[in-house]
Amino acid sequence: MIATKAYAAQSATAPLGPWNIERREPGPHDVQIEISYCGVCHSDIHQVRDEWGGSIYPMVPGHEIVGRITKVGDHVTRFKVGDLAGIGCFVDSCRVCDPCKAGEEQYCAEGNASTYNGYEMDRKTLTYGGYSTSIVVDEKYTLKVSDKLPLEGVAPLLCAGITTYSPLRHWKVGKGHKVAVLGLGGLGHMAVKLAASFGAEVTMLSTSPSKEADARKLGAHHFALITDKDVMKSLRSKFDFIINTISAPHEYNTYLKLLTINGVMIVLGIPPEPSQVPAFNLIMGRKSVAGSMIGGIRETQEMLDYCAEHNIASDVEVINIEDINTAYERMMKGDVKYRFVIDIASLKK
Amino acid sequence: MIATKAYAAQSATAPLGPWNIERREPGPHDVQIEISYCGVCHSDIHQVRDEWGGSIYPMVPGHEIVGRITKVGDHVTRFKVGDLAGIGCFVDSCRVCDPCKAGEEQYCAEGNASTYNGYEMDRKTLTYGGYSTSIVVDEKYTLKVSDKLPLEGVAPLLCAGITTYSPLRHWKVGKGHKVAVLGLGGLGHMAVKLAASFGAEVTMLSTSPSKEADARKLGAHHFALITDKDVMKSLRSKFDFIINTISAPHEYNTYLKLLTINGVMIVLGIPPEPSQVPAFNLIMGRKSVAGSMIGGIRETQEMLDYCAEHNIASDVEVINIEDINTAYERMMKGDVKYRFVIDIASLKK
Repeated sequence: MIATKAYAAQSATAPLGPWNIERREPGPHDVQIEISYCGVCHSDIHQVRDEWGGSIYPMVPGHEIVGRITKVGDHVTRFKVGDLAGIGCFVDSCRVCDPCKAGEEQYCAEGNASTYNGYEMDRKTLTYGGYSTSIVVDEKYTLKVSDKLPLEGVAPLLCAGITTYSPLRHWKVGKGHKVAVLGLGGLGHMAVKLAASFGAEVTMLSTSPSKEADARKLGAHHFALITDKDVMKSLRSKFDFIINTISAPHEYNTYLKLLTINGVMIVLGIPPEPSQVPAFNLIMGRKSVAGSMIGGIRETQEMLDYCAEHNIASDVEVINIEDINTAYERMMKGDVKYRFVIDIASLKK
Repeated sequence: MIATKAYAAQSATAPLGPWNIERREPGPHDVQIEISYCGVCHSDIHQVRDEWGGSIYPMVPGHEIVGRITKVGDHVTRFKVGDLAGIGCFVDSCRVCDPCKAGEEQYCAEGNASTYNGYEMDRKTLTYGGYSTSIVVDEKYTLKVSDKLPLEGVAPLLCAGITTYSPLRHWKVGKGHKVAVLGLGGLGHMAVKLAASFGAEVTMLSTSPSKEADARKLGAHHFALITDKDVMKSLRSKFDFIINTISAPHEYNTYLKLLTINGVMIVLGIPPEPSQVPAFNLIMGRKSVAGSMIGGIRETQEMLDYCAEHNIASDVEVINIEDINTAYERMMKGDVKYRFVIDIASLKK
């Protein structure tokens, strides 16, 4: 076993602190990755604090992992020692169900193996995430990472990037489409960058005028204050898509009115309480409310390659591991542009 | 003006009774139709009783109209005297907005001219529906009706038929799809017939075991009791589409679980209170809740032609006009198989 330094939550109410874990020796199909950076996703907080229920402690969070291969198993063909690599939200899946066969392992019928706060497919071995110095994963669930982008900006692509890329591709968003992005956080800022890159006309919807300059810098063509009733009225029936990244409580219906005929609101955030959806406002215009979850391995690789080619990375604030609890507090206030990323070198000291 | 016998509601609380209206003399593009049958839609009751607000009295309901042309304007090209014809849920629209130009007049940006309880596009002239002996409509908003089907069974196609046909076509439902139909009323029985005719594997979801034989007769391949927890569990992730025709209060979430990955629940009924939709259950499987409203003129004609060719009509109970108030009471109890249709001959006596 490989002794590995990590940061863990020992309970739902304890702050994160140092803890030692062991990684398995790489099997024939495994790669061992020395982790360089790990992004801090909002779902880390939800799970650390057991807000979704069923959390397993001690928990080592982190599923936006980039690093360098330090060892490969005998049968590994796609990676060699020294390669950059990434790990996203899952590290294995059943591989035989329809979604897995279709390359959509995020929807694995058996439930895939979450990168942390879950179990390997043996359903016995706990998984530990990227707030740690190394990780061992089957090469099939390991992504190739280009050296063209700053590595710390690549880490959040593994979750925030694919979570927005996948629905934009699935619904074929591009030229001629008007897209609104709701919420300017980790997901929202990637949605703006990617939708604009795909050729769509992007409007940032926000409660705060202070975000206009930032939104435009990220690529938004327009900015609209959702607190302004006249603005909201003027935007009625305007958007083909709304990328809704808000996980705070809110009413979908306020935004359904902004959709044009056949418009789709794509929900990526999980508010604590379900929103009401009046049938009338869906029926009048053949509108939809849809969800989407991360993406499969094939599509995640496609996204990473696309981002490398188009020079798209996350805008991040790099922190040391000892700042993680403060970072969580700041995230709760929305005080981050737009993703904290842990420099794992700080964990090796 | 053309003196026309009708049945009208004088207020939200009064029963329907005889009333005389006038129809305009047919203009150059108009046809005059002597009405043979008019279907009784649940929305007639909602509007008569002002349950959606804004009802206009006296109100002559009815938007499932079939009859025979008795007069045509000078420029009418598609109809001649003696032809069968049908009128659906609207009698005009702006004709210049994007939806109108796309043949989707049901989503007219100006709001189309409802067949009753609305205004012509001059926004001054009240419209009166098919509980009447004749109607005058622009030929562009008049449907051709085949003589291959029993005329009384064609009437409900103008609303219940197109309301189910249009989403089934829009979402390309057919061979290889598993479709659940929720609610076995006017819409539900047409959804079963049409989805089965399009080659889908159809399951009727119902609260009442007594409906199984009927559902199968209509073309359902399977029947499932939604009150049976084990049955519901066995149906998890099974359906590509759920055609939800229920307008009584219910929770969408109960049925979202039955959708497979990429599954769509198509909502056609308008419950009095909006249902809650938990983001989590949309996200886990890229599911959608969508609405759809009737259909455009071109698609309504396509549907009528399809039904004539495939021998599909509504199953109806023909009533005389004086039975309309009793029929409403029976509809409130779900006591009709599956649509009441008024024999307008009874109004001419």
